[in-house]
Amino acid sequence: MIISLTIPALHAAYRDGSLTPTALIEELLARSARYPDHAIWITPPERARLLDRARELEAHGMDDLPLYGVPFAIKDNIDLAGVPTTCACPDYAYTPQQSATVVQKLLDAGAIAMGKTNLDQFATGLNGTRSPYGACRNAFNPDYISGGSSSGSAVAVALGLASFSLGTDTAGSGRVPAAFNNLVGLKATCGLISTHGVVPACRSLDVVSIFSLSAPDAQQVFAVALGEDAADAYSRAALPHGFDFGRAAQFRFGVPARKDLQFFGDAESERLFDAAVERLKRLGGEAVEIDFAPFMDTARLLYGGPWVAERYQAIRAFVDAKPEALFPVTREITLGGAKPLAADAFAAQYRLRDLQRQCAPVWDVVDCIVTPTAGTIYTRAEMLAEPLARNTDLGLYTNFMNLLDYAAIAVPAGFRADGLPLGITLFAPAHQDVPLLHLADLWQDDRALPCGAVETEPPVKPVSPVVAIPSGQVRVAVVGAHLSGLPLNGQLTSRGARLLRATRTAPHYKFYALPDGKRPGLIRVVSGGASIACEVWELPATAFGSFVAGIPAPLGIGSVQLEDGSSVAGFICEGIGIEGAKDITALAGWKAYLQT
Amino acid sequence: MIISLTIPALHAAYRDGSLTPTALIEELLARSARYPDHAIWITPPERARLLDRARELEAHGMDDLPLYGVPFAIKDNIDLAGVPTTCACPDYAYTPQQSATVVQKLLDAGAIAMGKTNLDQFATGLNGTRSPYGACRNAFNPDYISGGSSSGSAVAVALGLASFSLGTDTAGSGRVPAAFNNLVGLKATCGLISTHGVVPACRSLDVVSIFSLSAPDAQQVFAVALGEDAADAYSRAALPHGFDFGRAAQFRFGVPARKDLQFFGDAESERLFDAAVERLKRLGGEAVEIDFAPFMDTARLLYGGPWVAERYQAIRAFVDAKPEALFPVTREITLGGAKPLAADAFAAQYRLRDLQRQCAPVWDVVDCIVTPTAGTIYTRAEMLAEPLARNTDLGLYTNFMNLLDYAAIAVPAGFRADGLPLGITLFAPAHQDVPLLHLADLWQDDRALPCGAVETEPPVKPVSPVVAIPSGQVRVAVVGAHLSGLPLNGQLTSRGARLLRATRTAPHYKFYALPDGKRPGLIRVVSGGASIACEVWELPATAFGSFVAGIPAPLGIGSVQLEDGSSVAGFICEGIGIEGAKDITALAGWKAYLQT
Repeated sequence: MIISLTIPALHAAYRDGSLTPTALIEELLARSARYPDHAIWITPPERARLLDRARELEAHGMDDLPLYGVPFAIKDNIDLAGVPTTCACPDYAYTPQQSATVVQKLLDAGAIAMGKTNLDQFATGLNGTRSPYGACRNAFNPDYISGGSSSGSAVAVALGLASFSLGTDTAGSGRVPAAFNNLVGLKATCGLISTHGVVPACRSLDVVSIFSLSAPDAQQVFAVALGEDAADAYSRAALPHGFDFGRAAQFRFGVPARKDLQFFGDAESERLFDAAVERLKRLGGEAVEIDFAPFMDTARLLYGGPWVAERYQAIRAFVDAKPEALFPVTREITLGGAKPLAADAFAAQYRLRDLQRQCAPVWDVVDCIVTPTAGTIYTRAEMLAEPLARNTDLGLYTNFMNLLDYAAIAVPAGFRADGLPLGITLFAPAHQDVPLLHLADLWQDDRALPCGAVETEPPVKPVSPVVAIPSGQVRVAVVGAHLSGLPLNGQLTSRGARLLRATRTAPHYKFYALPDGKRPGLIRVVSGGASIACEVWELPATAFGSFVAGIPAPLGIGSVQLEDGSSVAGFICEGIGIEGAKDITALAGWKAYLQT
Repeated sequence: MIISLTIPALHAAYRDGSLTPTALIEELLARSARYPDHAIWITPPERARLLDRARELEAHGMDDLPLYGVPFAIKDNIDLAGVPTTCACPDYAYTPQQSATVVQKLLDAGAIAMGKTNLDQFATGLNGTRSPYGACRNAFNPDYISGGSSSGSAVAVALGLASFSLGTDTAGSGRVPAAFNNLVGLKATCGLISTHGVVPACRSLDVVSIFSLSAPDAQQVFAVALGEDAADAYSRAALPHGFDFGRAAQFRFGVPARKDLQFFGDAESERLFDAAVERLKRLGGEAVEIDFAPFMDTARLLYGGPWVAERYQAIRAFVDAKPEALFPVTREITLGGAKPLAADAFAAQYRLRDLQRQCAPVWDVVDCIVTPTAGTIYTRAEMLAEPLARNTDLGLYTNFMNLLDYAAIAVPAGFRADGLPLGITLFAPAHQDVPLLHLADLWQDDRALPCGAVETEPPVKPVSPVVAIPSGQVRVAVVGAHLSGLPLNGQLTSRGARLLRATRTAPHYKFYALPDGKRPGLIRVVSGGASIACEVWELPATAFGSFVAGIPAPLGIGSVQLEDGSSVAGFICEGIGIEGAKDITALAGWKAYLQT
């Protein structure tokens, strides 16, 4: 009946009547029953509640519900009203009256909350074995770890029990399980998705993450999920993004120097990563080797430093009163957070400031950085033999992300010979979420592989992807001294502008050399015009204002029509400006005139 | 010989030959000798070093030295190469090889470092009594406190021993002593002046402050002192400022509700503050009563919370090894910083985030806030009787400033009947330093009183004040639907634009109603033009780009000449746009046309 749980596939089936939410729920209940040993759920899908919800949606219809009938799973440290939140600690459990802000937004958009998923207790861990509800099993091979701490949320999507799921990601918990279960894992910019109604791990760093089968699905969920929330002091408004990875654009991506890459002896993982780098080049990327040392120093700071005190603070009264309620390894880690002094916390924050400054210059030379999501994967037995050391290995490429305020997306990168998936992570500065989603989409298109463990085809894509956050870029057509290589071009490049393409205007312009001899004037005419050579540049709107304000008369910025019929902002000229100017329309371009 | 130590007065005297740096040094050495009991200096002015410096400057001449021959004092927690840094703790003293970044910048600009000044030990205190080098005395009445912790730096300027001085300001140490000694005290935006080479108090909050006789002097010193510094992880680049307080502009200033104002029984202080509010109204300000509770909650968080751990961390090894080396009250406070846990520090940072969000909305309704700098002043005896409680009183209006990332300037507000000065503080969000300096300048012009304790005339002002940081505002002339009250005006106001004035263009324009009937076209012509009614608006350049990018053809933004002959950015129209348009030049304005 159901081919794919991607959102566009579900919506197409709902629209053509081949599926109803009720039928979907029945199917998902049956599927869920097939995995009793995977330890996916803490509160499993409950038939009566879900069928009520399905009927409610059917009565309403699809209109105005962007996530109509889309099933999702919720990590059990995020509140769903009326259902216990356990954090994988039965003694800690409480039943919230209200859903977390993000859950409520998804429900309001028509999504169906399937159940609450297993996790490394109190979201402490990257492996999926630290739960009294059982060690979550990998969707491809149950002997292997699922990754964590958002274990059940990832496995639920990978095994086709939900279209997407919510995790949380403080140190990698939304990315490592994506890699190990062949999923997209979006860890958006800190603060864009409210954490109100989420039990904190490290409150200053926690992010609600999204697991999905495709980047466009993640983008659609993200568009619903984001938004400033007065109830969350760490919430912030999304800003327009900068440089975007489009199909045509060239981009530059950073790759850690070989000496800084660790695969823990997993040659296949190394091969998959190297292949990913080559593939990104074919997508238009220029690889730039970067010094990864300050990123690794930052990663070490997270677990070696006092941020663990946030984990203690989050459940301080509980753990002080009832330490035996915690899973042994979780107790050891959490009570370790009671030791550092405030003075140590400030000292570590000073160090973090230093590291942030050491890392920042890389963004002058690359648009994103690619790393493995995790260097390798472990069996559950390997994990349990050395729980702390193996967990540290898993976080090598993820721990620094939130301390540095970056956005990141984990995407599948292929399979080892034994059938286990591994992934890569693409990351960029805060607020570059949408460009990263676009790059992840290009990547998935190019790979053309099914996502998760049960889908049989590459993800179905939406006809028109949702715009989660508007671009903050402006395009401007230049025809004179701002052209590449000419004297005023620096006014563009110093503002972060990039050349999109050299092209021509529509054939409706006269072109003049102004009397000063240094600038041309472009005059739109009813007849007798020509196509004039121009360049289209893109720059941040925030930098465009000062550019415009610096343009002397008789020039200005208006609209210029291009030869493909589109219009962009561009240089225009007051009519009075061509008094005494020389008509150079026949030369059809400023560089041609300069050569005369 | 010397009338005034303001920078323009000194420079005028140097220029006309009536003064030389050598002569100035001799005069200042003589003056300094008059105040042996004021406990101003820890390293007093040293004749041989200063005369060497004077001769060095005289050999160089004034060219390229904006602070040529300007004497300044340095708080003794800021490094001056070759001179001990004590922090008012003899056992802590060390002699730096390098000057602090800010000191070196001032020296490079030609300033003369007179000596190192007394302070509340390790900059812990707001009163000036906590030093083994003696309690610093008020410049007006030696029975009263000087304020602190930048005690000696303030008193040195007030008594005419330096033109300006450097303090540090973590909780008010650059403002309270300014108030008590009739000075300007600039506590700039955190991070704009490097703290490299400054012994930290609370490193995440420390600011190097400037005491001066006038706001333009502070601005000139600030222009030299600021600049991003790779050696200081808390350093940051100055951003262009927003709304400025000009002579013509109306502004809105916040005043705490009466219930939130405390004067500690000092009726004269209350009278001075009320008079200041009235005076600000006469300067063009509209008073807006604000809820001061979240600011006071933040102030309490500073001393009640774990930030004192930063003071401990700053000298941890020293104080752990040698606690008896500290002044008793300083030891008690500093060792208190060894108690809170990292968990407490994070909890307090969460609370601060909440308070920052509670305070932020006030900036939607006011451009600055005015408070007393301190509610009252104490005798040294009163201070020593209850050192902690009285110190808390002094910080009521200052403690919150750096936690909230605001810029602040303390200015003199007049005198009590007993001759003691009190001051007010004007504050605004980060990066509004220059507008605050402009407002302080307006304030001083209006007061027309001498500054400090020995000057006899109001401050001499520079002919053309230095531009410390460029404005980030753009002016744009609008002639059509963007005029006040018309349909597109919201495109300006939603971007934070303010109407500067309604005026007319130069008489060189034809004016057309475009065929769509909704927009006019303004066309500059050689003859037959008229003056067209327009409005000049000001908005942030960062918001102007998206405004420009949204303007449809045939309109655009170019330069428009106003009737006073000046040019501003403004709406222009392509010549082709008036095909079929109606000439309404005779109506001389869009509103006039709309009424027909």
